[in-house]
Amino acid sequence: QLAMSEKSLRKGSPAPGPVPEGLIRIYSMRFCPFAQRTRLVLLAKDIKFETINVNLKSKPEWFLKKAPFGMVPVLETSRGEIIYESPITSDYLDEVYPGKKLTPSDPLQKAQQKMLLEHFSKFVPFLYKVLQATRKGEDPTEMKIEMNVKLLELEEVLVNKKTPYFGGESLSMIDYMMWPWFERAEAFGVQDCFKDTPKLNAWIETMKQDPAVQATITDTKTLKTFLELYFSGSPDAEDYGL
Amino acid sequence: QLAMSEKSLRKGSPAPGPVPEGLIRIYSMRFCPFAQRTRLVLLAKDIKFETINVNLKSKPEWFLKKAPFGMVPVLETSRGEIIYESPITSDYLDEVYPGKKLTPSDPLQKAQQKMLLEHFSKFVPFLYKVLQATRKGEDPTEMKIEMNVKLLELEEVLVNKKTPYFGGESLSMIDYMMWPWFERAEAFGVQDCFKDTPKLNAWIETMKQDPAVQATITDTKTLKTFLELYFSGSPDAEDYGL
Repeated sequence: QLAMSEKSLRKGSPAPGPVPEGLIRIYSMRFCPFAQRTRLVLLAKDIKFETINVNLKSKPEWFLKKAPFGMVPVLETSRGEIIYESPITSDYLDEVYPGKKLTPSDPLQKAQQKMLLEHFSKFVPFLYKVLQATRKGEDPTEMKIEMNVKLLELEEVLVNKKTPYFGGESLSMIDYMMWPWFERAEAFGVQDCFKDTPKLNAWIETMKQDPAVQATITDTKTLKTFLELYFSGSPDAEDYGL
Repeated sequence: QLAMSEKSLRKGSPAPGPVPEGLIRIYSMRFCPFAQRTRLVLLAKDIKFETINVNLKSKPEWFLKKAPFGMVPVLETSRGEIIYESPITSDYLDEVYPGKKLTPSDPLQKAQQKMLLEHFSKFVPFLYKVLQATRKGEDPTEMKIEMNVKLLELEEVLVNKKTPYFGGESLSMIDYMMWPWFERAEAFGVQDCFKDTPKLNAWIETMKQDPAVQATITDTKTLKTFLELYFSGSPDAEDYGL
């Protein structure tokens, strides 16, 4: 990973030049869980990359041209090719680059990881609902009960598989795709939803030992401050702590 | 494709037995565009399969156990393995079965098809919005303008690629993933949104020549009657015409 300024580029900033040969570039945001998925894959596969952070509250014009949905992560290659959407970028990296394969080669296992990702995608909005309710001073109890049901479903997956990871005996793509939201559980104020999920809690502790997770982890206090700044609309949220 | 009763199985119906060796089973619904995606892939790859139609207004208990989201398509193998979600089932079939590969082997082209599918997924809800508005006697003009913008985006993809299909010179996975909704355009009452999309219209005509498309196509009159029955809540919608 090249050392570049971590400051996010805002509207009006000049467009970055082409990506140097032998590198891939990620347009990211330091606290974005979706961009973190791709950063985890880049690190786990030991890919040489550079990072350009984008201010999502004040998006540069050139960024919107590269990213039709206006979201991070976006990958850019030295040939100017563009790839976006976190699972698509992750699969692309896993297929193109050598080293540890994160996706199972067995089509059924691959399909099972993709189905679990679909289930997990329906879980993510609950986190934001709890946070928004808490921010508005509403009672999040009912939402937390619903979220607990979703977490128990994930617990059941691990119980049925009898393996420490969601893909089996070793860490694989699905674990990285899900991880960023578990890192944020306390910042989202849902740590009390993990009382009846011992296998899931053990997975969380194991994930914290992974070098790629350790290289991208953000502490709860920083995340809390970021979320508060972000949801209050501040364009300084992305650069908090720099 | 084995000849089985096309009648949909309803709540209370006995669970079907195991899938015979050498076959794969699809749980489908005759008029479902998502299930049609998988049927197109099964036919295009000349896979031996059997079909069990499920009544989505009156779902059998055993179906809900096999399909956690309660939706079709679902695949079941002779080993009792379950795969659901239309793009996941389609990729699974393309990877497991020999014959014509529908997905490009190049990771970038594959990523480009997946990105286009994401764009297309955001287009699908507009079709239902226009239909619902028309059913309620509301003016769909504004929604149709929005939809025309989406269709012009697809037109632009074909113009930029300079190829007859969305994946290149020959029909590939992305064409099958998008096709079912174009077959339904007139039934959804949006045929007047295709005035400025000559390339897209040519693609539609070309797709109609494909044997898998021809084997799964439903005429507009039947689709219209089905949609009217379905959205009025009738459990007989699925069996219309049998």
